[in-house]
Amino acid sequence: MKTIRLQLTLMSILSVGSLGFGPKASVKEPIEPIKPVTSVNKQLAELGKKLFFEPRLSKSGFISCNSCHNLSRGGTDNLATSIGHNWQQGPINSPTVLNASLNLAQFWDGRAADLKEQAGGPIENPKEMAASHVLVVDVLNSIPQYVKEFKKIFNHKGIEIEQVTQAIAEFEKTLITPNSRFDQWLLGNKDAINQQELEGYQLFKQSGCISCHNGAAVGGNSFQKMGIAQPYKTTNEAKGRIAVTGKEEDKHVFKVPTLRNIELTYPYFHDGSVDTLEQAVDIMAKVQIGRDFTKAENAKIVAFLKTLTGEQPTLTVPILPPSSSATPRPQPFAQ
Amino acid sequence: MKTIRLQLTLMSILSVGSLGFGPKASVKEPIEPIKPVTSVNKQLAELGKKLFFEPRLSKSGFISCNSCHNLSRGGTDNLATSIGHNWQQGPINSPTVLNASLNLAQFWDGRAADLKEQAGGPIENPKEMAASHVLVVDVLNSIPQYVKEFKKIFNHKGIEIEQVTQAIAEFEKTLITPNSRFDQWLLGNKDAINQQELEGYQLFKQSGCISCHNGAAVGGNSFQKMGIAQPYKTTNEAKGRIAVTGKEEDKHVFKVPTLRNIELTYPYFHDGSVDTLEQAVDIMAKVQIGRDFTKAENAKIVAFLKTLTGEQPTLTVPILPPSSSATPRPQPFAQ
Repeated sequence: MKTIRLQLTLMSILSVGSLGFGPKASVKEPIEPIKPVTSVNKQLAELGKKLFFEPRLSKSGFISCNSCHNLSRGGTDNLATSIGHNWQQGPINSPTVLNASLNLAQFWDGRAADLKEQAGGPIENPKEMAASHVLVVDVLNSIPQYVKEFKKIFNHKGIEIEQVTQAIAEFEKTLITPNSRFDQWLLGNKDAINQQELEGYQLFKQSGCISCHNGAAVGGNSFQKMGIAQPYKTTNEAKGRIAVTGKEEDKHVFKVPTLRNIELTYPYFHDGSVDTLEQAVDIMAKVQIGRDFTKAENAKIVAFLKTLTGEQPTLTVPILPPSSSATPRPQPFAQ
Repeated sequence: MKTIRLQLTLMSILSVGSLGFGPKASVKEPIEPIKPVTSVNKQLAELGKKLFFEPRLSKSGFISCNSCHNLSRGGTDNLATSIGHNWQQGPINSPTVLNASLNLAQFWDGRAADLKEQAGGPIENPKEMAASHVLVVDVLNSIPQYVKEFKKIFNHKGIEIEQVTQAIAEFEKTLITPNSRFDQWLLGNKDAINQQELEGYQLFKQSGCISCHNGAAVGGNSFQKMGIAQPYKTTNEAKGRIAVTGKEEDKHVFKVPTLRNIELTYPYFHDGSVDTLEQAVDIMAKVQIGRDFTKAENAKIVAFLKTLTGEQPTLTVPILPPSSSATPRPQPFAQ
C-alpha cells in the first residue's frame, strides 16, 4: 500500500497544475480518453449483433447475451446476480459488456483470454443459457438466412461455433462509449466538468483509487485483491483468480472492473451487494485504501465518477431470421 | 359454415378477375393494405418505447414487455407459452404486438378493450411480470429522468399508471408492418407476388379462410370458435371468450389472430402447439372448414401467407435512465 500511495502522490503533483484549467498537453493523465473503434469488420459485427440479441443461443429460446448484458442499461442487467435458465441465480454480478474489449481478460477472474473466448462460456453454462455449442450450431445451421449470412462472410460450408463467437466478439468490439464529459475534459475542454467533479478527480488520484482504476477503461487492466486494507465481507462464494491460477495468493483477487459508465452499471462489486455509488465509494475507501472519506469527499468522488458516462452505442434493434421446420425447438420447461 | 362458404364463393367470383394481373381498382379485395401510421404523438411514443423495453416494470427487474413481445422476432417470443416471473409457464401463447392496434380488442379472449388497457395487465399478473401498479409508479417516480420526461409530456406532478399505459399504447400504435409483398400486389404491383403465391391467395379466399382472416390485419377483427367443423384437440385449458362474457356459446371462442407476419410469429394457435405453417394450415383446414388440402394446395397457401411479412419496425435500442438511491430494488429471488 505504501508504494501505491507514493505513486499516487507523485501523480497528483504532476497533474495538480491542471486544476481548473483542463489538462495541459505536457501533463500525462493516468486516465486516457476512449478512442473510437476503427478496425472493425462491419459485416461480421452486424452478424454478431444479431447473435448477441439471439435467444435461440439458449436452451429455453428466451435468454440472449443481451438479457444479462442489456444494451439499454449500460450493458448490464442491474441485478446483484443474474437470472439464468429456469430462473437459477447466477454466482456473480454480470459485468458490463461496454468497453469490455479494453479488459486485459474476460470474466471477473479473467478465465477467458478475450471476448471471443468469453462468448462461448454462458451459452454452455447450465446456470446461464444452458445450451450446448452443438445445439447452437444445429439451430443456426437450420435457419436459411443465417446460413447465407455466415457463408457470405466466412465462405465456409456450415456454421461452426468458432464463427459464432468470433462474430459476437466483433460486435462487442464496437460497444465502446467515447466522449464522456471526463474525456472531453481530458481532450482540453475545461468546461466539460465542474469544480466539484474536478476536485473529485484530484481526490480519486491523491487517495490511491487511480492505482487500480486507470487507463482508458479506468480499470480492467489488472487483477487486484478485493480487501487490501481490511477484509471485504460478503456471503458470495466466488474466490476470484485462484480458480484460474490455483495460487493461494490469488484468493479474492478479481479483475478490477472498469469505472466507465459506472453510474449505469449498479449494483456494484463482484457480489452486486451495493446499490449506490455513495456506498460503493465508502466501502472501497475502507477495504482497499483504509480510509474514511468525509461526506463531502465522497460526494466529490461520486460526482467525478458520473462524468465517466459516455455516449451509449446507437444500435438498431436487429430483426432475427425465422426458424425453419428443421430448427430444433426451444425447451424452456424441459427438465 | 354454409353461409361462410357462400360468402367466400361470392368474394372469389368478384376477385377472380385479378388472377395474374394484379387487382383492378374496381375490384375490392377482402384484404386491405396496412396504412402507415399518421396520427402519433411522437414524444409520447418515444417514452412508450422506453417503457416497452423497461425491465423495472417487473418485480424481478428482468422482464419487460419486449421479453414476450420481442420486436426482433415478429413481436413474439416464439415460445408455445411464455416464461414469466420465477420461470412460471404462461397459460397461453403470447400474441404478436405488431399491428395489434388493428385488433378489435386485446388478448386472445378480448378482455381488454384496447392497447392501453392491455398494457396494464401483464405488469400486475403474478405469472408474468408480477409487479403491481403501485410498485411500478413508485419505481418510475424515483427515477429523475423519467419524472422529467413524463412531466414534459403530461404537465402533471407525479407519474401515474394511466400515463404509463397510455405511453406504451402510443408506442405500440407505431408497430405496424406496411409494404409486405402482398400489400405491394394489392396496390397494383403485379410482380410483387409469384404465380404460386397468387394461387394460394385465391385458394385462401375460395376455401373460406378469408371469412375470418380479412381486413387490414388479415384477422384480428372478430371472435370465432376454434373448432367449427370438428373439435380442436388441445391440453391447453384456456376457455376463450366465455371468460369475458360468461356465455356458453363463447366457449372456445377466441379472437382471430392476425396473419400479418405469420412467418415470424410461430408457434401457432392460442396453445402454441404447432411449429410450422404447413401444420397450421393443415389443422385449420380440418377443424375450421372441414377440408383436407392436398400437399400442393397446402404449399400454395403457405406461400401466400409468407407474402404477408411486412417491413419490421426500424427502432433504435432505447437507453434507459438509471435508478436513483430512492428506487425500490428489483426482487428477482424473493418469495
